[in-house]
Amino acid sequence: MDVLLVAGLPADEVHAWRRCLVAAAPEIRWFDADEGGFDPAAIEVAVVANPPPGRLSGLPRLRLIQSLWAGVDRLLADPTLPAVPLARMVDPAMSAAMAETALWATLALHRGFFVYARQQQSACWQPLPQRRADEANVLVLGQGEMGRAVATRLRAQGYRVHGWRRGEALAPLLVASEIVINLLPLTDATRGLIDAGFIAALPRGASIVNLARGAHVIDTDLLAALDRGQLAHVVLDVFGTEPLPPDHPYWRHPGVTVLPHVAALTDERSAARVVAANLRALRDGRPIAHLVERVKGY
Amino acid sequence: MDVLLVAGLPADEVHAWRRCLVAAAPEIRWFDADEGGFDPAAIEVAVVANPPPGRLSGLPRLRLIQSLWAGVDRLLADPTLPAVPLARMVDPAMSAAMAETALWATLALHRGFFVYARQQQSACWQPLPQRRADEANVLVLGQGEMGRAVATRLRAQGYRVHGWRRGEALAPLLVASEIVINLLPLTDATRGLIDAGFIAALPRGASIVNLARGAHVIDTDLLAALDRGQLAHVVLDVFGTEPLPPDHPYWRHPGVTVLPHVAALTDERSAARVVAANLRALRDGRPIAHLVERVKGY
Repeated sequence: MDVLLVAGLPADEVHAWRRCLVAAAPEIRWFDADEGGFDPAAIEVAVVANPPPGRLSGLPRLRLIQSLWAGVDRLLADPTLPAVPLARMVDPAMSAAMAETALWATLALHRGFFVYARQQQSACWQPLPQRRADEANVLVLGQGEMGRAVATRLRAQGYRVHGWRRGEALAPLLVASEIVINLLPLTDATRGLIDAGFIAALPRGASIVNLARGAHVIDTDLLAALDRGQLAHVVLDVFGTEPLPPDHPYWRHPGVTVLPHVAALTDERSAARVVAANLRALRDGRPIAHLVERVKGY
Repeated sequence: MDVLLVAGLPADEVHAWRRCLVAAAPEIRWFDADEGGFDPAAIEVAVVANPPPGRLSGLPRLRLIQSLWAGVDRLLADPTLPAVPLARMVDPAMSAAMAETALWATLALHRGFFVYARQQQSACWQPLPQRRADEANVLVLGQGEMGRAVATRLRAQGYRVHGWRRGEALAPLLVASEIVINLLPLTDATRGLIDAGFIAALPRGASIVNLARGAHVIDTDLLAALDRGQLAHVVLDVFGTEPLPPDHPYWRHPGVTVLPHVAALTDERSAARVVAANLRALRDGRPIAHLVERVKGY
């Protein structure tokens, strides 16, 4: 089987992927779109990260696009994307990394560690009251692989966790949630969900952790809520423009923790094994795992 | 049974303790050392937090001192402490809080969140390589209640954890430990343990989390190791002088996270139940829990 890697990544990252993919599936004939030397009419699968728009055209025998990323909103926004089955990356190693980030942020918010970091800047020694984990209500938006992994990990630490999936009533959950963790896919239905109305429904002094997509959040609403104390702190891993521009107010706001889109990096080693399993499923006529429903957007 | 509360704490904290102790053991006749009104010859138990030296003298029928704190190094340093059995506080709620703090610090060190916080100060967007939890070696110093609770919690997150107790060889463990978490009792044998030699035995770029006592650490050695990169970051909850003086270099060092002795606050509600159980054991002639061996110091 001929498979084309269309990474759209820096050369060193492409080489790392290539090495891991070949190791995981040595029986495949691997080609790199940037290097050429392949027969477009022989390519059956495109393995993609950030492919330039239009780069997947002209592959007449293409029958699967396998994404190396979990989120496929960027791929689906390309009107030239061939209408063949599209699989997204679902990797237990990535879900574990996401759960670690969500747990770190939740512990820091629940136990006041962001507040202590601010106090340290002015040499201020001021213990805060301590609450038990089972006194903290956490709302996890999204109940896909990532959302479920995060909810499970937080429950194991004693937190009171509600998982929300679209279609369920959200307002009654917001009223009681001090910490909201966003792990939704970005679709037309979830874009801009975290706006002034959403934030106003939370209890005063709540916190938001956005680990999904920047476009889920209305930035001006978030900043206004921080400035008037409706939100105590936010942890943001994703932004409308990445890298976050140096003059963006998020960088310097004392109530904002900025992460450079690192909540869960794809692990090339384990992700390559996931890709290999799907290629073999295709070859053997077995079901492809984690196919995207294009009408839903994830 | 007449029991004397010798808190040595601010009035609001004394009242909170008093309320919880009375609720947990209403059959006890509770007296407050600051209020007087008690018969010294009738007091059988002293429940203490930070008693002023000498304050426990003149209680001829005293047969138990129950500490509200887990660490009793300060009590044992008082040469006037009556030679009756001394019990320290061992409270599952406190161990849980300690495990939360240790887990937060470990996640932050392992996943680079302290580095990202420093990057944010200069609007720097720079993802770091991501490692799995099972690629991180964590050494927990001390295998009492707290140390075991921390080690168990970290193992459940996938970390490779070694627990060390005094008497075991330490040097072979240090060589392989990127993260060291100190939960030792403070005794003559552990004072100053974390010195230049200890730190030099760690791999370059290691981190230390001190949640036990400030006197375990030689501060000048720690700062020198941070300045030359032998240590990447330290999280300090405890200090030789508390509150940490405003001009101490720890406050402003970029490689130091300062916490105001909050890793595990005693929870008055659950701690009062622990005290009540010990008072009833004493009354009924059953074994007292968590008695301190004075020769060992914990």
